[in-house]
Amino acid sequence: MDLVSCKSDFPVLERHIDEQKITYLDSAATSLKPRSVIEAMSNYYSQNGVNIHRGKYYLSEEASDSYERVRYSIAQYLGAYGNEIVFTKGTTEALNMVAYGLNLQSDDIVVGFLDSHHAQMLPWRRAADLRLVNLNDEGGIDLDHYYELLKLKPKVVVLTHCSNVTGTVAPIDQMTKAAKEACDAIVVVDAAQSMPHPHLRIDVSKLDVDFVAFSAHKMLGPTGVGCLYGKSARLNELRPLVVGGGMVDWVDMEGSQERKIPHRFEAGTPAIASTLGFGAALNYLKQFGEEASLAHTEELTEAIIKGALARDYIQLLGTKSAKNRCAIGSLRIKGCEDLSDIARSLSDSYGIMCRTGHMCAQPIVDQQMGGEVLRISAYIYNTTEEIDRFYQSLDELVYFLGLV
Amino acid sequence: MDLVSCKSDFPVLERHIDEQKITYLDSAATSLKPRSVIEAMSNYYSQNGVNIHRGKYYLSEEASDSYERVRYSIAQYLGAYGNEIVFTKGTTEALNMVAYGLNLQSDDIVVGFLDSHHAQMLPWRRAADLRLVNLNDEGGIDLDHYYELLKLKPKVVVLTHCSNVTGTVAPIDQMTKAAKEACDAIVVVDAAQSMPHPHLRIDVSKLDVDFVAFSAHKMLGPTGVGCLYGKSARLNELRPLVVGGGMVDWVDMEGSQERKIPHRFEAGTPAIASTLGFGAALNYLKQFGEEASLAHTEELTEAIIKGALARDYIQLLGTKSAKNRCAIGSLRIKGCEDLSDIARSLSDSYGIMCRTGHMCAQPIVDQQMGGEVLRISAYIYNTTEEIDRFYQSLDELVYFLGLV
Repeated sequence: MDLVSCKSDFPVLERHIDEQKITYLDSAATSLKPRSVIEAMSNYYSQNGVNIHRGKYYLSEEASDSYERVRYSIAQYLGAYGNEIVFTKGTTEALNMVAYGLNLQSDDIVVGFLDSHHAQMLPWRRAADLRLVNLNDEGGIDLDHYYELLKLKPKVVVLTHCSNVTGTVAPIDQMTKAAKEACDAIVVVDAAQSMPHPHLRIDVSKLDVDFVAFSAHKMLGPTGVGCLYGKSARLNELRPLVVGGGMVDWVDMEGSQERKIPHRFEAGTPAIASTLGFGAALNYLKQFGEEASLAHTEELTEAIIKGALARDYIQLLGTKSAKNRCAIGSLRIKGCEDLSDIARSLSDSYGIMCRTGHMCAQPIVDQQMGGEVLRISAYIYNTTEEIDRFYQSLDELVYFLGLV
Repeated sequence: MDLVSCKSDFPVLERHIDEQKITYLDSAATSLKPRSVIEAMSNYYSQNGVNIHRGKYYLSEEASDSYERVRYSIAQYLGAYGNEIVFTKGTTEALNMVAYGLNLQSDDIVVGFLDSHHAQMLPWRRAADLRLVNLNDEGGIDLDHYYELLKLKPKVVVLTHCSNVTGTVAPIDQMTKAAKEACDAIVVVDAAQSMPHPHLRIDVSKLDVDFVAFSAHKMLGPTGVGCLYGKSARLNELRPLVVGGGMVDWVDMEGSQERKIPHRFEAGTPAIASTLGFGAALNYLKQFGEEASLAHTEELTEAIIKGALARDYIQLLGTKSAKNRCAIGSLRIKGCEDLSDIARSLSDSYGIMCRTGHMCAQPIVDQQMGGEVLRISAYIYNTTEEIDRFYQSLDELVYFLGLV
């Protein structure tokens, strides 16, 4: 399927606000949802709507089957076994489950990265002694510092496959090998920004990572559901963050027996409809081959970099090559104190939706960009014309505001 | 609005399976969803679909406003302040958040109840020294034993407003007063089974409870979202279970500063569409007055009790009065070793959907019913004719199976 012609599958893009079409450039926050995903959820609620597992009746078995089929389809996509796929609320919950569940001591060393999202930083800082790998001059990862920190023999290394601020795709293959060789560290990957792209799919049958976390809502699926992949041996040892119904084989007056993986991590009624939507999103995404995904990403990324470099008033964070980079651009505008005014004007006068702030990755944004960026992020339904339109609109705005 | 005529609002009830209409008697597991709830979620995804908070653009502000309006509408329904409403994945997560967040010591005494759901038992057993209040001869709460256990001066008392097995509505008003008088215990209410009923709505401006947990999906809303009400003073002291983006004001190389309540309990992208569905569910539910809700519940409950008492081959758990009871009937069939066969036949031959097992409340089901029950549970869209139909079908089945 052609990546550009898919636009018509996203009903929100037919909406006009103040007679303007929408230019959506905030997919790193959440992607839009295609019609097939929306319909998968509506269909469940209007044709079934009941709870899964344990029910020995037709509707419950129908719902349970559909739910478990999504688990197996994700497992297949990752090269994993079905019981290695745990459904979570999203990446944040998944990473917290691992940080809590590993029973770390406060002096256990965990190596993380300065360009990580707060969700891949705060749970580890709370559970252990988190050391952060510095950035290089371009705002990328300082690999030498990483290798230096591995000498401390960390118990856990927490990688970010693609930074949500710089768009940098980390060489997780090489980094995982180094972590295993140095000290057989447990490797936990935040893949929230990479998994949406077929060319960045992690194949756990080839890459020796222990845990991978990602969210449905950044890969065309609904909010409120995500996935934790864990090697079965690791999951078997992980202490559940949440306990309750559905995760135990039996409970008596004295104790209880936990169920096997993955069920012992899924206490309570899960987000059933959203999980079915997740399955539909994955089916939709699989239409695009890895090559098409890579080519489209590079095209969008080049447009983001080129547009920024062509303008003196813009500072762009991160590498200036479109290789190993996603279509995320975090910008600073020289002389502009409050980027949120710019974002609001882009929205209200041009229909362009992009984000400002620290992007839940404050250490890097503070260190590199003075605390705030204007971030644009593009995805499968975006075109380079939209990126160009963003820059042209920005030109008009900064001129109007007297910043150039 | 008339409670019986609402049936046509639930699209799944128009479905036929093997040319049979559906008789849904598993609402204690999850309720069906009315059209307005399904549409609220589809509308969000097809007309908006973006992430909430922080985004300074039109669609994000529109989504954030809708999301926060649901919070205030729930707050208003409970007589609470907006910042006392925390969105969770459901009741189970909410109860885990409290059990974890109170920083209990393993020898702190928590008083719970033998008829509670595993979600109101296991998190407390893990965090502290959980003592369970016995049942009386009818399978109801032994209040004398409760008062006895209060003499141990528990730090926390964990109530279940309505048992998901017996349907008993506990006198939480009186029990809360006793807990406060005895030792000023923190009172945590599992209201998953009561909140769906307008006549059992908890008004926290009148009832001195500290925390209340419930799920959207049992009250006409979607799966994957629920609510933790907490008194603001209690929430301010509660340690967050999950940390990450959106719950901190700032993060630097050394530390971080948590945001105010309720946001510091909502790390990561929440279940946005489901929360909007939750709001639509509450709006739908508010159409029914407390009186109509009570009358309809008593009518259904009477039909459940009457039908069971009229049959020698049935043992019904719990009180035989329709007062202070919800329309839940947990049955044992004399001479029947495997109730799941019965449930499957009811489904496949009669289109009747009900549940078997220990209902995630194994201590009471083990003690009172030999480990397994056949549970029917009715809600606003059910009629007494459906209860009668269930019993008549059961008569045929047990006759056919040679059990009578």
